Amino acid sequence: MKHIVIIGGGFAGINLARALAGNNNFEVTLVDKNNYNFFPPLIYQVATAFLEPSSISYPFRKLFRKKKNLRFRLGELKQVVPAENRIILSNGDLQYDYLVFATGAETNYFGMLNVKQHAIPMKTLHDAIAMRNRMLQQMEQAIITQDEAERKKLLTFVIAGGGPTGVEISGMLAEMGRTIVLKDYPELHGKRGEIYLVDGSEALLSPMSKQSQKDTHNALRRMGVRIRLNVHVKDYVNDTVILDDGDTIEAKTLIWAAGVTARIFEGIPATSYGRGKRMIVDGFNKVQGTENIYAIGDTCLQTADEKFPNGHPQVAQVAIQQGKHMAKNFKAMETGKTPTLFHYHDKGSMAIIGRNKAVADLPPTLHFRGVIAFFLWLFVHVMSLINYRNRLKTLYNWTVAYFSKDQSLRMIIRPDNEK
Amino acid sequence: MKHIVIIGGGFAGINLARALAGNNNFEVTLVDKNNYNFFPPLIYQVATAFLEPSSISYPFRKLFRKKKNLRFRLGELKQVVPAENRIILSNGDLQYDYLVFATGAETNYFGMLNVKQHAIPMKTLHDAIAMRNRMLQQMEQAIITQDEAERKKLLTFVIAGGGPTGVEISGMLAEMGRTIVLKDYPELHGKRGEIYLVDGSEALLSPMSKQSQKDTHNALRRMGVRIRLNVHVKDYVNDTVILDDGDTIEAKTLIWAAGVTARIFEGIPATSYGRGKRMIVDGFNKVQGTENIYAIGDTCLQTADEKFPNGHPQVAQVAIQQGKHMAKNFKAMETGKTPTLFHYHDKGSMAIIGRNKAVADLPPTLHFRGVIAFFLWLFVHVMSLINYRNRLKTLYNWTVAYFSKDQSLRMIIRPDNEK
Repeated sequence: MKHIVIIGGGFAGINLARALAGNNNFEVTLVDKNNYNFFPPLIYQVATAFLEPSSISYPFRKLFRKKKNLRFRLGELKQVVPAENRIILSNGDLQYDYLVFATGAETNYFGMLNVKQHAIPMKTLHDAIAMRNRMLQQMEQAIITQDEAERKKLLTFVIAGGGPTGVEISGMLAEMGRTIVLKDYPELHGKRGEIYLVDGSEALLSPMSKQSQKDTHNALRRMGVRIRLNVHVKDYVNDTVILDDGDTIEAKTLIWAAGVTARIFEGIPATSYGRGKRMIVDGFNKVQGTENIYAIGDTCLQTADEKFPNGHPQVAQVAIQQGKHMAKNFKAMETGKTPTLFHYHDKGSMAIIGRNKAVADLPPTLHFRGVIAFFLWLFVHVMSLINYRNRLKTLYNWTVAYFSKDQSLRMIIRPDNEK
Repeated sequence: MKHIVIIGGGFAGINLARALAGNNNFEVTLVDKNNYNFFPPLIYQVATAFLEPSSISYPFRKLFRKKKNLRFRLGELKQVVPAENRIILSNGDLQYDYLVFATGAETNYFGMLNVKQHAIPMKTLHDAIAMRNRMLQQMEQAIITQDEAERKKLLTFVIAGGGPTGVEISGMLAEMGRTIVLKDYPELHGKRGEIYLVDGSEALLSPMSKQSQKDTHNALRRMGVRIRLNVHVKDYVNDTVILDDGDTIEAKTLIWAAGVTARIFEGIPATSYGRGKRMIVDGFNKVQGTENIYAIGDTCLQTADEKFPNGHPQVAQVAIQQGKHMAKNFKAMETGKTPTLFHYHDKGSMAIIGRNKAVADLPPTLHFRGVIAFFLWLFVHVMSLINYRNRLKTLYNWTVAYFSKDQSLRMIIRPDNEK
């Protein structure tokens, strides 16, 4: 029986683990620094208090229940010792036969220290809760302050990054400004701030179709979002976002969704890393320069797939497909069959804008927008939640939010900074 | 139009505010350091991951929506300046015509510094989340450790205080040990810790009937809880709970539900405070030695009520009734009518033990136990949740938990200590 250790329980890791459940040839240990899997496409809804954290997260242990060959281990990877087939975690060691990196990507601040220190990233569930608490707290401060300029800064949000996360957050904030803020914060009537969406490229949602880009742009503008393209955030000092065209925006909140990077792990040869610190893997996802170490999902760079000579996009579908494919290859290897090369099947991409608008591109050239795209998005995302109870709850929360345009989740709950 | 400022949005404050909604004679500002009301009788369910925080909490602003004479103010009271009818908050000042203290009570450590530093209190929603995270984390550590004694300490819980909170927490933990731990933590099979419930008096639930005390005692014992009566916690050093009969219990978790105390506020004369730092009030809840300052709920000590010459018990029902009565008296005062004396109507008391057992005493001498008492408890508590959506959600969560004996809320989510 071979012991497979998977580092990271995101889309890639969890799909690999689940595909190996019940297989007698493998014992699988999934290591994660959190004890839960969460659903990144929806964290923007947690950040804006439309969904609760538990609607989009699920404990690994409950997920692995009754799957006897799957184990969960809470811990953070500190070092790999390939010569001994051993990893060192923050709280102990593990031996492996196969090691799989499914460590995803983290927020990239491109070396800007002020941005790193003061901006809110939008990558983890913690980020989303921090954003929610910050936003709610700033509204309260905006009510108290007598200083008009200070109030404007408190109510102004700058979102850097025009990918799906940036688009979705700005749409949601604009929606909140039109509905909830007016109802819950009567003191703020006529005292609105602005929402800026800043992106360095020529269009929002740059990998999507021209039509989706245009629809998104128009929808956000109609909702009052100020879109700034072809410009980058250069610095963030004294509540002022400094753009590289010389412009500045005064805002107490800068949401950073402008880039990701993979991570360097001690023990993996420096020559195994490529662009964006991604681990260079062959067509079977084996890490270059190693014997029994693999990498799947956002953290790997695979150029063997003919249609993607520069590597795959760092999106959920690639991670899911690589996780499942990796499981097939492990099974093949163990039963003397030939492993197969990974090929990514693009199932299209979508983004949601505000309450009931969305855009969707389905290959080869189908394009949807408006309510149809919204329901398509809803269906695909709710169905992708890993657990039946999650789906029910999320659907229930959504239905309530949809019909009441509202939720009751705007509590500032910070367990750790009290006491 | 008179401005009433209420400090604290618990049972007393929120009932006063709601009873004044829509009244043209008053403008009401409710001040709280949190932006949400929460339901203390159920925090033990959050602490054991059976309910989520949002099931038992609700934002003040949403509660006050469409109630034009009610305002919410986030802030903490720092000082009262009675001569100027002014209060100083952590983030500004407010003027009042009437000031009402509805500040409740906080955990009393009886001067034991080690207990204060290392025990987990069980009074606020933050406490409950801290407890949940601690418990889940210790289970993970118990799996990792190779040291048998260390593991036992990690899995042993001492609960100080045999009131409803202590009884309910120990029952819930015992329930978890029998069901969830076995399913989710297969590594811990045969490696259980102990649950101790410690109380200084002769019986658990001391204000309840002898029959309820006996039923509770027997039920908890059958569930495996070790009950230690007539003994107090004296200290908590090096993961060791030291009892005043010389015994010690090694445990990484001490849950402190053994007492509460009111708070001293700067600006209120020292002579206005009585036993337990409670503000001495007359039969109309006016604070002794003040002109236009009132106190209701746990924070006040009212001896004018004939049946309660030593003051009322610090329970939810007193707070609710005092809040409503205070509103009536304000209305009377403003319309030239005579305010009336407060009289507490005891509606009975209940406690829940584990999953579907409970005890209930209804005055004068009715006693229930078992499933009937459980449903009585369920009905009364769910109906007491302030909001319809809360009720639905909590009932839904309960139904799921009841039939599956389980929930999916065991995520260790700590927004603030990361980064």
